[in-house]
Amino acid sequence: MVNRIFLIAVAAGLPLSIAGSILQWPSLIMFGIYCLTIVALAGYMGRATESLAIVAGPRIGGLLNATFGNAVELIISIFALQAGLTGVVLASLTGSVIGNLLLVGGLSFLVGGLKHKRQEFSVYDARHNSGLLIFSVIVAFVIPEVFAMDMDEAKTISFSVGISVILIVLYLFALFFRLVTHRGVYKHKTDEAGEHEEPEWGAKKAIVVLLLATAAVAYVSENLVHTFETVGEQLGWSELFIGVIIVAVVGNAAEHASAIVMAFKNKMNIAVEIAVGSTLQIAMFVAPLLVLLSLLFEQSMPLVFTMPELISMVTAVFLTIILTNDGDTNWFEGATLLAAYLIMGIGFYLL
Amino acid sequence: MVNRIFLIAVAAGLPLSIAGSILQWPSLIMFGIYCLTIVALAGYMGRATESLAIVAGPRIGGLLNATFGNAVELIISIFALQAGLTGVVLASLTGSVIGNLLLVGGLSFLVGGLKHKRQEFSVYDARHNSGLLIFSVIVAFVIPEVFAMDMDEAKTISFSVGISVILIVLYLFALFFRLVTHRGVYKHKTDEAGEHEEPEWGAKKAIVVLLLATAAVAYVSENLVHTFETVGEQLGWSELFIGVIIVAVVGNAAEHASAIVMAFKNKMNIAVEIAVGSTLQIAMFVAPLLVLLSLLFEQSMPLVFTMPELISMVTAVFLTIILTNDGDTNWFEGATLLAAYLIMGIGFYLL
Amino acid sequence: MVNRIFLIAVAAGLPLSIAGSILQWPSLIMFGIYCLTIVALAGYMGRATESLAIVAGPRIGGLLNATFGNAVELIISIFALQAGLTGVVLASLTGSVIGNLLLVGGLSFLVGGLKHKRQEFSVYDARHNSGLLIFSVIVAFVIPEVFAMDMDEAKTISFSVGISVILIVLYLFALFFRLVTHRGVYKHKTDEAGEHEEPEWGAKKAIVVLLLATAAVAYVSENLVHTFETVGEQLGWSELFIGVIIVAVVGNAAEHASAIVMAFKNKMNIAVEIAVGSTLQIAMFVAPLLVLLSLLFEQSMPLVFTMPELISMVTAVFLTIILTNDGDTNWFEGATLLAAYLIMGIGFYLL
Repeated sequence: MVNRIFLIAVAAGLPLSIAGSILQWPSLIMFGIYCLTIVALAGYMGRATESLAIVAGPRIGGLLNATFGNAVELIISIFALQAGLTGVVLASLTGSVIGNLLLVGGLSFLVGGLKHKRQEFSVYDARHNSGLLIFSVIVAFVIPEVFAMDMDEAKTISFSVGISVILIVLYLFALFFRLVTHRGVYKHKTDEAGEHEEPEWGAKKAIVVLLLATAAVAYVSENLVHTFETVGEQLGWSELFIGVIIVAVVGNAAEHASAIVMAFKNKMNIAVEIAVGSTLQIAMFVAPLLVLLSLLFEQSMPLVFTMPELISMVTAVFLTIILTNDGDTNWFEGATLLAAYLIMGIGFYLL
Repeated sequence: MVNRIFLIAVAAGLPLSIAGSILQWPSLIMFGIYCLTIVALAGYMGRATESLAIVAGPRIGGLLNATFGNAVELIISIFALQAGLTGVVLASLTGSVIGNLLLVGGLSFLVGGLKHKRQEFSVYDARHNSGLLIFSVIVAFVIPEVFAMDMDEAKTISFSVGISVILIVLYLFALFFRLVTHRGVYKHKTDEAGEHEEPEWGAKKAIVVLLLATAAVAYVSENLVHTFETVGEQLGWSELFIGVIIVAVVGNAAEHASAIVMAFKNKMNIAVEIAVGSTLQIAMFVAPLLVLLSLLFEQSMPLVFTMPELISMVTAVFLTIILTNDGDTNWFEGATLLAAYLIMGIGFYLL
Repeated sequence: MVNRIFLIAVAAGLPLSIAGSILQWPSLIMFGIYCLTIVALAGYMGRATESLAIVAGPRIGGLLNATFGNAVELIISIFALQAGLTGVVLASLTGSVIGNLLLVGGLSFLVGGLKHKRQEFSVYDARHNSGLLIFSVIVAFVIPEVFAMDMDEAKTISFSVGISVILIVLYLFALFFRLVTHRGVYKHKTDEAGEHEEPEWGAKKAIVVLLLATAAVAYVSENLVHTFETVGEQLGWSELFIGVIIVAVVGNAAEHASAIVMAFKNKMNIAVEIAVGSTLQIAMFVAPLLVLLSLLFEQSMPLVFTMPELISMVTAVFLTIILTNDGDTNWFEGATLLAAYLIMGIGFYLL
């Protein structure tokens, strides 16, 4: 039933997106078409990822999700860097961090919690992720903010490059730790639960669907970005609001869809892995990679956010850690995360 | 024995308070009389609440305590808003937050810990409360502070109103969560301990005493506030110090008394519920309600504290969370909380 | 084998240090000789402490380590205060805090983790220490920073003195709590593991070695400090970088050596006690004592750090707490701590 709606949305939305962008239909209309198409494509990505996750186990499945969600953002950001829009890139990185933690996490906990009274996930993964959230956002993002106040521009860029290299190296260490040296060392009580399930699609079909849907999402997303300026003017939205809220909501639609589906099916390990794992990939891999790539363009991007951006990420991290650290979620924890997102959203709207 | 002293204090203090305020006795003398009378009345409130708590169970008992303690503060603050003293209201809100967490919490843990080597309380409630403390103080109080630096006054008020509505809605959700959807889902090992006890008074008598004592505390408190200016001049206390420290200490005398009595009787669930629950009611209900009510008066109150106020609340929250999150207390944790309160008290005195 | 190298290093380094400082050899050469000598002496201190620790139990052993490591720093700082270098003292206190938490802690977890897959230590000690870290760094260091912005110099000194007295009193309470009122109340699963081991030296010999090595370390350290200015000029290091990084690395060599040896031998209780316990002794005893002692000299030292110093300590505390609070470590947690230290090191180098 839901699958049929998604099929129709993609079958109609994708041609309309291509036609509209060639024929230059009005931006507001195209904005709606693009958004719906992406959400429908995200549905396919969610199903493909779920099939792969059943075959590959919850952790690799979660990694796949985060990767395919953030590939879109990486591509959009590179185009923005080329255009010299470092402020927009930093804003969309901020939006991805708070969007993944508060919006994706919040919706997963809320929707999952409305069906299941208590949901559990690996407390070891939660603690591992908490450490990395503190490291990346509290240490690696806050330190340059404060130190840069007493530095000139050249030193700020040098410092940003140094931190970026350290972030990427530690991110690779983290993968090595989880997939090689400590694979299975920290056992989960909740892992066995879903293993008897049959995947909807085989591994090959799932991979093909995943790749095609990702390519289509990337194509539509890029067109979507070009409607932002006109839409912003017509609806009275500031650039910061579009960067932090709109880009993140639409750009992370894939994560939203799959995380919520996983939470609804009580597979909280995957749902949390998508929300928090995706945040960590943004903070420890996409953000520093963009800092390094920006050296190739005219305007280098320092790892220095605006104060509202930084404080939003810092407070989102503290809230996420305190709510997830016990490996237990319910609808109210979801509502709390969403309330925090709403406060930040209103704040960025009013700025 | 103690009860007889309280009886004498009330029987003498209440007529003296009324006579003194009508005959306009010297402020310093009245200050002393008011304070003693409130503490004695708080003793009655503590005993009445304890009786009700035994009848109604620890959670409702704790809620009752927090409610009756904060009703006094709400009434005083409304009078202050009417007089345009938004700075004093924000200072007394700050004082209630740090006073409840550090002074009430600290005295409970210290006094309880001097009698009992280790005291335990529900780790689930501690985590639930920790999440709400982070949400209200770290997210909902810090965010407007930083964002308001780039906003004009009108937008700051709009933002404050938006956050206030979100805080109140989430507070109602929290009550719904604890009393309806997840009542008894998170079981406490320590809950059964005190249930065999007999209440001192029946439910009806306890309610009558509670209501009368609350009314008397409100009457005396209001008179007390009017002595602050003269007392401040005579003793060299700044308005900020009076707002943050004196109002909070006297205004929360009810919580002090009952929380310490509960801790002494090893009912830590109630003691913590009073200290932390009262803080949450201040931060998530009283503070936003006052922001909304201030729209009715000439001068609107934004949810923007001074930096010393904000940092005091933020650090008090982090200290409380780290000390309570394991559901285990002792005298040294009480001493640590009191030491933090002392540092802040000296700071506000010197400002 | 290693012991023989240490013996040779001390037998050669100590006479060379004395000769070089009398004959005024070039600073860069002496810098290297002093450093190696201190590291070798630290090896002796580590072995002596380990012998004592086996005799006296893990907790007293850890306290001994922290004490003998910080005696050196206290002596150096007093000389610096006498010379009016309050900025350098605050920088070296900062360096000791982040050096102990991130460098000593990080190396212990990394080296221990490369040999042992998972290492455990007392979760009760971890929580107790977390509370004190929050109290000392987040409350007692952050509060004066913010409050001092609105205070004149005299009030800032008064506030610093008040906080210092509170810190020292609470530190003594903490010792009383752990050694008297709650000795053995919080049992450790992991404590019994190492008790069957034989000490290398008897208690008497260990104490003699410990005292002699400490005296020699103090002598060499003091000479080392006098080479910093010239070395800084020749190598292009700022005073802040020397104070925060170099003084801390060399000054804490004793802790480095013994903590890593303990971690390698899987005695994580002692390793963590050295890293975190030493930090607490710096923050709660050495720092406030220096503030009080500074009243005897011409220039009083307020407890007000620079913003980069403060933020480094605050973020180091949050990272340490989140990584140690579960009483479980591995190589990746060590790498994370070291990565944070590296970021701060680069930052202070560029400032």
